[in-house]
Amino acid sequence: MSGPDTPVPVIDLDRVERNIAKAQAYCDQHGLRLRPHIKTHKLPVLAHKQLTAGAIGITCQKISEAAVMAASGIDDILLTYNIVSDSKLPALTQLIWATEHLTIALDNDVAVNLAGRAALQAGRELDILVEFESGKLRTGVLTPEQALTLAKTILATKHLNFAGFMTYPVSQVSGDWVSRAKDLFSKHDIPITVFSGGTTPLMWQAHEVAGLTELRPGTYIYHDRATVAAGAATLDECALHVHATVVSTPEPGRAVIDAGSKTLSSDRISPEYGEGYGLVLEYPEAIITNLSEEHGVLDVSACQNQPKIGERVRIVPNHVCVVTNLHDEIIFQRDGVVQGVYPVWARGKTR
Amino acid sequence: MSGPDTPVPVIDLDRVERNIAKAQAYCDQHGLRLRPHIKTHKLPVLAHKQLTAGAIGITCQKISEAAVMAASGIDDILLTYNIVSDSKLPALTQLIWATEHLTIALDNDVAVNLAGRAALQAGRELDILVEFESGKLRTGVLTPEQALTLAKTILATKHLNFAGFMTYPVSQVSGDWVSRAKDLFSKHDIPITVFSGGTTPLMWQAHEVAGLTELRPGTYIYHDRATVAAGAATLDECALHVHATVVSTPEPGRAVIDAGSKTLSSDRISPEYGEGYGLVLEYPEAIITNLSEEHGVLDVSACQNQPKIGERVRIVPNHVCVVTNLHDEIIFQRDGVVQGVYPVWARGKTR
Repeated sequence: MSGPDTPVPVIDLDRVERNIAKAQAYCDQHGLRLRPHIKTHKLPVLAHKQLTAGAIGITCQKISEAAVMAASGIDDILLTYNIVSDSKLPALTQLIWATEHLTIALDNDVAVNLAGRAALQAGRELDILVEFESGKLRTGVLTPEQALTLAKTILATKHLNFAGFMTYPVSQVSGDWVSRAKDLFSKHDIPITVFSGGTTPLMWQAHEVAGLTELRPGTYIYHDRATVAAGAATLDECALHVHATVVSTPEPGRAVIDAGSKTLSSDRISPEYGEGYGLVLEYPEAIITNLSEEHGVLDVSACQNQPKIGERVRIVPNHVCVVTNLHDEIIFQRDGVVQGVYPVWARGKTR
Repeated sequence: MSGPDTPVPVIDLDRVERNIAKAQAYCDQHGLRLRPHIKTHKLPVLAHKQLTAGAIGITCQKISEAAVMAASGIDDILLTYNIVSDSKLPALTQLIWATEHLTIALDNDVAVNLAGRAALQAGRELDILVEFESGKLRTGVLTPEQALTLAKTILATKHLNFAGFMTYPVSQVSGDWVSRAKDLFSKHDIPITVFSGGTTPLMWQAHEVAGLTELRPGTYIYHDRATVAAGAATLDECALHVHATVVSTPEPGRAVIDAGSKTLSSDRISPEYGEGYGLVLEYPEAIITNLSEEHGVLDVSACQNQPKIGERVRIVPNHVCVVTNLHDEIIFQRDGVVQGVYPVWARGKTR
């Protein structure tokens, strides 16, 4: 019945350190540079652990997120986002000043133009990666020919260097795309030094992707129900548990916890991988069938023992990155003993 | 192309004031007391507008949320949540001190015991409502007989007053339940002074619920795609729009905006009410088919005009309460002119 007030995300630091070391060892073994995406933890203290272990820099999605990391003393950042609005010019210029080496990935002319203006204002050079489509159908140019046109625009823009390619998610398909692009680019004497790919679910197969130079996993530091389902981790490697309390047991077979969508998010995983909104470690047969903002409703009819009001449970979330975005603070533990309470400084940084 | 940096939630203050006035007029007309749920806006400044218009107090879900409102000078608060953990005793005691009139709704003995201990520590009396089940299958006692047992425990606890019943969502069913409970309670000489029901979708039918004394709508202040779908509002009454920017148009028929699940949440609405993760006002035929954390992918193949990179769009979210929880700041406008940028003080208050 004792422990920190709930609901609250709790990190097992030993697991975090093992996850960091394992990913670094894999990358070292295969000659890949590791550039973790910090969107999973949003904590400078853990980004610095990743760098100390051997990461060459970090990945951020948004300028405001990168600004937090830069302010904490991190000087090599890849921004994997199209920045296209004039309203972002001052913040981007400041970010260039705040870093030693900023790289931006983009897929269009407008973003090239804005990057060029920011670099000019900052009086500094920027490395640019061209993002390409590899199955997500989100952002990214479709063909090597489109990439070539964009690379030429980059090369024609003062203060910008074309450095290579970026994609998400990375898999065999992207290796083939880059091979074709390399053939095309070499005919135009444009060297490609970076091929950066993001994934946690497929990260342990990244060495099979032809030409990949840099890996950008995010979730691997904590793992979650989705990466376990994908076979990229075991349940024992999941380093973030949401601690919650049973607040109601209105009838046999139903229990309600104080973790709803404001705590766990509404993110689901594919039905073949698991039901509900997370895995309750103490009651693996329980299904979190419904979430309101502050309530999680559990079907515990398949459980031998029934949860009692006041009892604490730990939940492995479906998608851990969105969970950390919901919480202002996170607790660090070792062997169940609290080591500190950290503000999640880079949460809510959507701009 | 101009306007505040995106993504950002923007409030139309005129619409907010009309929504507040309309709900208050409805309640006044039907002799209902209005006790708005502040989870929708999470802003003291708007809670005070609701009170000035005639609300008798506010509703909060969690102690930490209520503490923000109390600190802003609001002294009549209903907490509609089972508080069962000893770890919450200090915060609950403080909240009793910080308010003139605190009421707690609960459905079990453990919560009664904790409320009694907090009231004792605070040296004050607390009003208690018994929550009952009315179709949500979340929290709440099932039968009037169970409510009677719990009411007797409340009456036997020093410093606690039994004041009546609470349910969510309120509808005709709950009126019938309360009628049966009143018969039972009158045989035991236990008066029922409060019957508090929560709903926005069914709020305009609340006067048909037998015995209802108090209405606790939340979403009505902003409305969203779900309450419009339910027939409780028109699209013109939706007061919160998420402003976003088109950041990529990789191929005809696909556009990507800078609002993903960190901005809009992953909440869906029933398929019969609408597809995707929100309604794009400038492109009503567009479907927001997929959300990543920072990207929203739009299928714009049915749109006559295609969105351009850098273009701003406004989105009516599926579920507005979870959107406000994601943002540290919110912009107020009148006639499209910014009136202020407000910190969302009660966001992230899950404990």
